[in-house]
Amino acid sequence: MGKLLRINTREKTLNFEKTTDAYAGLGGRALTSKLILDEVPATCHPLGKANKLIFAPGILAGSPAADSGRLSAGAKSPLTGGIKESNAGGLVSQKLARLGITAIILEDKPETSDFSLIVIDKDGIRILPADDLVGKGNYAVMETLWEKYGKNVGVLSIGQAGEQCLKGASIQQADMNGRPGRAHGRGGLGAVMGAKKIKAIVVDDKGASRVEIKDKEAFKAANKKWVEMLRKHPVTGEGLPALGTAVLVNVINEAGAFPTKNFRSGQFEHAQDISGEKMAEIIEKRGGVISEPCHPGCVIKCSNVYNNKEGKYLTSGFEYETIWAFGAHTTIKELDDIAMLDRLCDDFGLDTIEMGVTLGVAMDGGMIPWGDGKAAIDLLSKIGQYASEGKIIGNGAGFTGDALGLDRIPIVKNQALPAYDPRSVKGVGVTYATTPMGADHTAGYGVTANILSVGGTIDPHKKEGNIELSQGLQIATAAVDAAGLCLFVAFAVLDNDDGLPTICEMLNAQYGLSLAPADVLELGKSILNNEKEFNRKAGFTKIDDRLPEMFYEKLPPHDTQWDFTSEELSKTLNF
Amino acid sequence: MGKLLRINTREKTLNFEKTTDAYAGLGGRALTSKLILDEVPATCHPLGKANKLIFAPGILAGSPAADSGRLSAGAKSPLTGGIKESNAGGLVSQKLARLGITAIILEDKPETSDFSLIVIDKDGIRILPADDLVGKGNYAVMETLWEKYGKNVGVLSIGQAGEQCLKGASIQQADMNGRPGRAHGRGGLGAVMGAKKIKAIVVDDKGASRVEIKDKEAFKAANKKWVEMLRKHPVTGEGLPALGTAVLVNVINEAGAFPTKNFRSGQFEHAQDISGEKMAEIIEKRGGVISEPCHPGCVIKCSNVYNNKEGKYLTSGFEYETIWAFGAHTTIKELDDIAMLDRLCDDFGLDTIEMGVTLGVAMDGGMIPWGDGKAAIDLLSKIGQYASEGKIIGNGAGFTGDALGLDRIPIVKNQALPAYDPRSVKGVGVTYATTPMGADHTAGYGVTANILSVGGTIDPHKKEGNIELSQGLQIATAAVDAAGLCLFVAFAVLDNDDGLPTICEMLNAQYGLSLAPADVLELGKSILNNEKEFNRKAGFTKIDDRLPEMFYEKLPPHDTQWDFTSEELSKTLNF
Repeated sequence: MGKLLRINTREKTLNFEKTTDAYAGLGGRALTSKLILDEVPATCHPLGKANKLIFAPGILAGSPAADSGRLSAGAKSPLTGGIKESNAGGLVSQKLARLGITAIILEDKPETSDFSLIVIDKDGIRILPADDLVGKGNYAVMETLWEKYGKNVGVLSIGQAGEQCLKGASIQQADMNGRPGRAHGRGGLGAVMGAKKIKAIVVDDKGASRVEIKDKEAFKAANKKWVEMLRKHPVTGEGLPALGTAVLVNVINEAGAFPTKNFRSGQFEHAQDISGEKMAEIIEKRGGVISEPCHPGCVIKCSNVYNNKEGKYLTSGFEYETIWAFGAHTTIKELDDIAMLDRLCDDFGLDTIEMGVTLGVAMDGGMIPWGDGKAAIDLLSKIGQYASEGKIIGNGAGFTGDALGLDRIPIVKNQALPAYDPRSVKGVGVTYATTPMGADHTAGYGVTANILSVGGTIDPHKKEGNIELSQGLQIATAAVDAAGLCLFVAFAVLDNDDGLPTICEMLNAQYGLSLAPADVLELGKSILNNEKEFNRKAGFTKIDDRLPEMFYEKLPPHDTQWDFTSEELSKTLNF
Repeated sequence: MGKLLRINTREKTLNFEKTTDAYAGLGGRALTSKLILDEVPATCHPLGKANKLIFAPGILAGSPAADSGRLSAGAKSPLTGGIKESNAGGLVSQKLARLGITAIILEDKPETSDFSLIVIDKDGIRILPADDLVGKGNYAVMETLWEKYGKNVGVLSIGQAGEQCLKGASIQQADMNGRPGRAHGRGGLGAVMGAKKIKAIVVDDKGASRVEIKDKEAFKAANKKWVEMLRKHPVTGEGLPALGTAVLVNVINEAGAFPTKNFRSGQFEHAQDISGEKMAEIIEKRGGVISEPCHPGCVIKCSNVYNNKEGKYLTSGFEYETIWAFGAHTTIKELDDIAMLDRLCDDFGLDTIEMGVTLGVAMDGGMIPWGDGKAAIDLLSKIGQYASEGKIIGNGAGFTGDALGLDRIPIVKNQALPAYDPRSVKGVGVTYATTPMGADHTAGYGVTANILSVGGTIDPHKKEGNIELSQGLQIATAAVDAAGLCLFVAFAVLDNDDGLPTICEMLNAQYGLSLAPADVLELGKSILNNEKEFNRKAGFTKIDDRLPEMFYEKLPPHDTQWDFTSEELSKTLNF
């Protein structure tokens, strides 16, 4: 197996370590979560020296397997106070795999205020002063680093938000064009990187050998089936390539589950103006890119490039959740304003879901007017200016609600709820309440069977079946995150009996193993158990596994209400 | 027994309720904590409609018993998320007792933004618009209300901080001069009052009958012993009347337990400049008042009036903890600046301990320079200006540390540590860690045996005996808070075998009971058990009963460290 790269950010020293048996065969979220459980004191301060920031490619990373280029980042979260894994596309995962690095573990923290740059290539590791990058946004940082280290190096960096250790801070990854279009968004991991005074990490695999595949023929055959499966499924083969994830705007709005004006309604009267269809029309007219991959080897290609009115680049990786958060949630209906807010988040290094929800909460508290895109842009810009308002909103929805003295704040474990109202998509609501991550749709995407009729059909308004739905999805997702596969492969896997076996075939061919689907699900369970155990040690109880009181209000148009008891919810991850 | 006054703040309705058997004989903290446990859903949002704000006089309130005029305020705390009782002197407690009101329970919250004034007198209750008071500080509010309702009515009010629902907001009580010198300071109860849109409560007992005493002669005899005991003890009879609580500055500084520069040292080089001796000298020179009571019937008289250089009133009730928080903790050494900070807190309605610690944290994060009194006054003033900086610091030390991305924040359960370093006064350190209130010296004042040799002597630097010390004090304090007695009576009680029996004699004479000291201690235990139970239901675990990592640093000059394990601490309130 590969090796762990430990970097002491205070002493500026490093060492390589062979992975021990306990960690053999673990990658991505399986590895970050186990390392955090084993090495990070659960009660430590997330910004203190005892926390560790870990990056781990999935176990399929660097192989030719389609859509296997996601990198997991993990730490104790400054936002939730619990364990966190947040994965993203980009270039780093596959390059680390080729360099034989199973994980980067950033430890300790400097006592000085100087930031460093870490450069990793096949000849070794350099820890360099980053004075020229400090105070810069991710666009400038990545441009500088691509110029200096080559036009296709992988980059992980933080912007002004991470430098300020704000709880909404992301770690951005350079996309295939060297722009910060991909984000380890949720849970404030950028603040941990900021606390450790690492401005950026460059990963260059030039001259590195390919990842070893034990049985090349078998791998090729399995991957062929895999690619076909992804291409044939209507979501991964048609919907996502055609309109990106924003294909969901009209779908979720029609289902009455599109949270509007800080979760007061499930339908937004201006949904059309911010829909995937509208976005595709604008992109086409202005000469953007409707469909592009977020990492090499992706066949779904749900990313995009959105130009401004002058036909110049404005933002990329413009996603459904972002459009919802800055759109329906705040009642902003101008897609260009929403795109600018997305760009600012990528540049300052901020989670778009957290920031969109925060702006809605700020509007609820009277900080800026509802639906005012320009005011929202001005307020978000305060983060880049290191201003006091930025130190409020940059710390997220819970923090901003507290600053404004509000009692109606859509958070679980202090993390903002994403783009699906839990009252009308109860399968994802169960996930929000119970995942160790805090409110997170990607941890168990119940929208599948609730709305999209993928992997079966379960009534989104009723309790029945939704605990089980979330449980199954949370287990499968943990395994998918360990493999380094994009979550969207789940659409095809859920609708194909041959899906999970094909993933096993690829793993078996790469590593000479004989895994069966049951083994993969056991892995998923063990990941969740590790994460639950860390949170338990950090002081979490079943009281933390719940939605706030506001979700007992009725949601128009279907007048649905949240109605799960604590006892019911506690079954979700009890296995 | 008396009656409970319930006021629905949304409907502007009220009703009187006979106290049921379950609440018979309970007053002060015993009553507020039991009502909260029984009626407030532990997981509710503290600023939401399900929280209740309760005021309850102690069971000796209104009687001639010396120092029995403390009023308990209780709610689920916006600062800690747990149960809170915070008591203060002033005029309200005795007046409520004479009106036969055992507790005021403020329920629900309005949907509009209008504030109300509640006026309580013997003829009934009026809920009036408070438009003329909104936006005003407590000095102006109390002046207006004394002018309108009479020059000795009791007043509870909130300033700009409570209106903004800030977690550092206090509820101030008019002192005997109609000034906001007394505070229900800790835990942000002013924010709960603000959320319920109650700007002030006026309590007028004109025409009310005296509190009934069943055996007047026995009461008189017991109270006489009681007064003598208080007058003879060196702390309550000499130290506190001569220099106020600031008598402790030199004592605690010499013990090396005076937290300096955000808990980096136990000694402040300028302690002399902010000492009780120095304060008394200034007060005398400028024609202030060195010693006055905080409520009628107090024989200790540790309060004071501090004038400015021109000999005009500047502040009153100027306490040791305030002087420490704004002084040594921030390294501000000008007593006039500290007095101005105290005044601003009283006026805006803020806890001085929370705010002083917050300013030190803000200095640690570079918001203002260390030791700069003028900058501190400017920053604190932002709260009165409803500015963004105010919405950061007004939410307390934990919030401000988070806003600034710090990992060294002296809080327990999100409440700022008071004026005794837990590494060098371990008895009080155990209290900080384990009381259900969050870091609070008054919950179990281990300084007694640790530093003052009151009630025995226990080494403040060692573990031995300090769990037991804190346990005994926490039990006794809960009972004292239920009686409505000033905590300072504990000095005399701890050093007199006849102390607790004398309190029992007064209670027995007033109510025709036959309580023994063991009954009083059982009451103390039951209060703590109720509070622990509420916190457990709110999601607290033993993980919350600990000091932050920073207290594992060595504290000069004695190089003491915090060294209690979680297992040891968990014994403190296990009975």
